[in-house]
Amino acid sequence: MKTSTPPRILLTAGPTREHIDPVRFLSNGSSGRMGYALAGEAAARGCAVELVSGPVSLPAPEGVTVHRVVSAADMLAACEPLFGACDVFIAVAAVSDYRPRVFAPEKMKKNGGVLTLEFEPTVDILKTLAARKHPGQTVVGFAAETRDVEAYARRKLETKNLDWIVANDVSRPGIGMDAADNAVLLLSRAGARLAFGPAPKQAVAGFILDHVLC
Amino acid sequence: MKTSTPPRILLTAGPTREHIDPVRFLSNGSSGRMGYALAGEAAARGCAVELVSGPVSLPAPEGVTVHRVVSAADMLAACEPLFGACDVFIAVAAVSDYRPRVFAPEKMKKNGGVLTLEFEPTVDILKTLAARKHPGQTVVGFAAETRDVEAYARRKLETKNLDWIVANDVSRPGIGMDAADNAVLLLSRAGARLAFGPAPKQAVAGFILDHVLC
Repeated sequence: MKTSTPPRILLTAGPTREHIDPVRFLSNGSSGRMGYALAGEAAARGCAVELVSGPVSLPAPEGVTVHRVVSAADMLAACEPLFGACDVFIAVAAVSDYRPRVFAPEKMKKNGGVLTLEFEPTVDILKTLAARKHPGQTVVGFAAETRDVEAYARRKLETKNLDWIVANDVSRPGIGMDAADNAVLLLSRAGARLAFGPAPKQAVAGFILDHVLC
Repeated sequence: MKTSTPPRILLTAGPTREHIDPVRFLSNGSSGRMGYALAGEAAARGCAVELVSGPVSLPAPEGVTVHRVVSAADMLAACEPLFGACDVFIAVAAVSDYRPRVFAPEKMKKNGGVLTLEFEPTVDILKTLAARKHPGQTVVGFAAETRDVEAYARRKLETKNLDWIVANDVSRPGIGMDAADNAVLLLSRAGARLAFGPAPKQAVAGFILDHVLC
């Protein structure tokens, strides 16, 4: 991606929450730190940065416009009007991939028995937007897995029409999803395979941007 | 409760997470702020405070010993050895009341279809500990509901052997579970009915302690 004006970056970060009732939800432990670090680093490099964020307890990075959302459906709805104008889309959010089929508008009462709930797949935000990629756009995904990390990441890179994927193994204690540090493997459609870390997420953000912005 | 030495307070705070697999869990949006405000205020009043906390992004309040846990089962296990020695137990945590019957040790792969999961009730921490209450101990519960708040709170006060219950309506925007402010109704087994707020959680903490510590 080569432009004379600063690139416009769209990022997603954090988890999504898929509510069962007004109180309970299905989610994951993403802290949002990796996405916020990337957003802050991209802004520091002069990029115009829009960050669509699930519920996290992080402040907006300096120079970044943050759009706060709850569910996967909300996140896609917030990204859609921003995607067309971006040069680089980096999908860092740990989107819940299932949501309850039925939402109970009042808090369910515990009746002491077994509760059976049906979940359906949420919309695939990365795949949906990457399918609309126009020439000159770069799309970067993340893959958080507990095993066969590289194989899953390569499959995701290909099936979702991505340019880069950042693979990380979330089964390692102190690294990844809800940690200060991360260790990643950066794979490109063009064949690059670059490992980095464990290192603070800020340093990992710099490493990723060094490659995907050039 | 009247003692000449400073009272020993045991509190729970935050949500619990009930994992479906290493990545996904059932939880709720409790920020932990109400419990941390109570713990900090109790410590500032000279109490010895032990705080058993679910996953939140808050620092330990000054002078408070924090025990960090994930699930409802972990939370009970952490409270059990501390309960016998406390003068006041305040259960602020928004404990997940269901957990998956089966835990998948590897992250489940999305197969595009409907996923049916069975959930079973978690252990009732407040009821379990309140049943072991000895003379001189005070047990305080919280009730977060979206409707019929006072009726549910009174039932909980009676059925769980509590001395006080703090009822709050989590259906009101900007108040309660994941907010800076709270509005509460404090009910005692002895018949007191005291309303307070909306006010910052620190002020609500002071109001609660004014009553339950005297």
